[in-house]
Amino acid sequence: MEKVVIVGTGLIGASIGLSLRQAGFTGSLTGVDANPAEAEAAQRIGAVDDFIAPANTDRALELCAAADVVILAVPVLAIMGWIDRLAPVLGPQTLLTDTGSTKAAICDLARRSFASVGKARFLPGHPMAGKESGGAALAEANLFDRAMWLFTPLDSAATPQESEFRAWVARFGARTMDLDPARHDRICAWVSHLPQMVSTAMAALFEDEFAQEPDLASEFRLIGGRAMREMTRLGASPFSMWRDVAQTNTTNVAATLFALEQRLAHIRENLKTPELREEFMKANHFGKNNK
Amino acid sequence: MEKVVIVGTGLIGASIGLSLRQAGFTGSLTGVDANPAEAEAAQRIGAVDDFIAPANTDRALELCAAADVVILAVPVLAIMGWIDRLAPVLGPQTLLTDTGSTKAAICDLARRSFASVGKARFLPGHPMAGKESGGAALAEANLFDRAMWLFTPLDSAATPQESEFRAWVARFGARTMDLDPARHDRICAWVSHLPQMVSTAMAALFEDEFAQEPDLASEFRLIGGRAMREMTRLGASPFSMWRDVAQTNTTNVAATLFALEQRLAHIRENLKTPELREEFMKANHFGKNNK
Repeated sequence: MEKVVIVGTGLIGASIGLSLRQAGFTGSLTGVDANPAEAEAAQRIGAVDDFIAPANTDRALELCAAADVVILAVPVLAIMGWIDRLAPVLGPQTLLTDTGSTKAAICDLARRSFASVGKARFLPGHPMAGKESGGAALAEANLFDRAMWLFTPLDSAATPQESEFRAWVARFGARTMDLDPARHDRICAWVSHLPQMVSTAMAALFEDEFAQEPDLASEFRLIGGRAMREMTRLGASPFSMWRDVAQTNTTNVAATLFALEQRLAHIRENLKTPELREEFMKANHFGKNNK
Repeated sequence: MEKVVIVGTGLIGASIGLSLRQAGFTGSLTGVDANPAEAEAAQRIGAVDDFIAPANTDRALELCAAADVVILAVPVLAIMGWIDRLAPVLGPQTLLTDTGSTKAAICDLARRSFASVGKARFLPGHPMAGKESGGAALAEANLFDRAMWLFTPLDSAATPQESEFRAWVARFGARTMDLDPARHDRICAWVSHLPQMVSTAMAALFEDEFAQEPDLASEFRLIGGRAMREMTRLGASPFSMWRDVAQTNTTNVAATLFALEQRLAHIRENLKTPELREEFMKANHFGKNNK
């Protein structure tokens, strides 16, 4: 692994560049980003050596075709667009991997796109290390240290390139796990997508509730403490990324939302009955097992 | 203020004792607690000098009647029980204050109980500095530093005792705000009670969802990161305290839960429509104004 191209030099892409350098990678790192400011920011902090921005399709595709590893670190639908464009030009010497938050739609497309002999190997990945704000300016060389980096491999046996890339990820300090794409999307709906939607819903609700009453809004802000900040932190997350999650994991996300709606209604209807104790007991038990 | 009695030597009560000592209080601190182990723990860490436990009613009432300040640091319904028992025995030389999470029910009762001439002054208070776990063992002398300590006074003019007690609270480093009890309960439903119920609902939902599938539960635990931990942290909170909040702020809490249920349903129905963007824009705006 000598030539690496990072497509999308935002928080995740730039952090991968910094992590590779910190782990001792001495090959070339080239960024591709639609936004010149992001690509420049990534170069300034040393996450990439040089860049193509705006993402000039012909030059970018040539660059990817000549790379050992291409990392797609853009939102899910953009990853799928790059898979469409890259599948015809990447040869078996190149490993293509991604960092998309949902995996079933990406894997379905990649299975079709990279099925034939002589195509590049695609390793679907998902480093779970986001922040509520994006951008290369927030990138860190330690972002993946102790984070979970999930893989949903399409092929049972790893190529040497895949093994080498996985070894770099291990050097970042990340824990890794392989799982089936459908199972990935189901679990991530619970641990990541539902918390995001709840946080967005609560922040949007507060915004509507207090926007028309400035005095109340000001008291609300002074009184709100850690609980309120924690529950609404993810509300600051960018729509651009979450739109794609909602589009590509709709059924799972809808199921978790519906289940929570039912649960909240159950609590609301039982604020004065012994059923409320049952809910607290279950929640206490969950807490004990998840410390 | 020389003789202080703290009724309830758990997290809040014991932290008040420690805070008083750290702020230079040299008078006597006596604890009253139903649970001897809690009272002993509070004495061991220096939060009280001595204690009565179990809360022997006659001796405890005598002690309170002879105190300058009595602080009720027990759950809301227990506070109301103490108001009933103390109103006949406390004279105007004693300031009674509390730390209850809801204020309207307590203030309604106190208004009736302390209405006549020659009764003790009651100052309803609410230090917003809980943790998800209770107990004297977690008490801290700095628990109220930079926390909000709300008051919902029944009388417009403060007595000298009240002013002295408020001065101690200021020395703890707490910010303070006076507001109407009904407004207190409405705002706290949004900033505190709704986050608690959502966290309980999510933790209970996870507990039910994964309890029957050990493999999935184990993957879920390994994959769940900061978002999941934050959103379920309060699920560990004790039912004993929250039962009383649910009982005494039912209408407000039910209204916030219903509003969130509607909001989640709206998001669920719009996972693939431009309405989702509107929700994220509102949530982003809330985040910018609440940093």
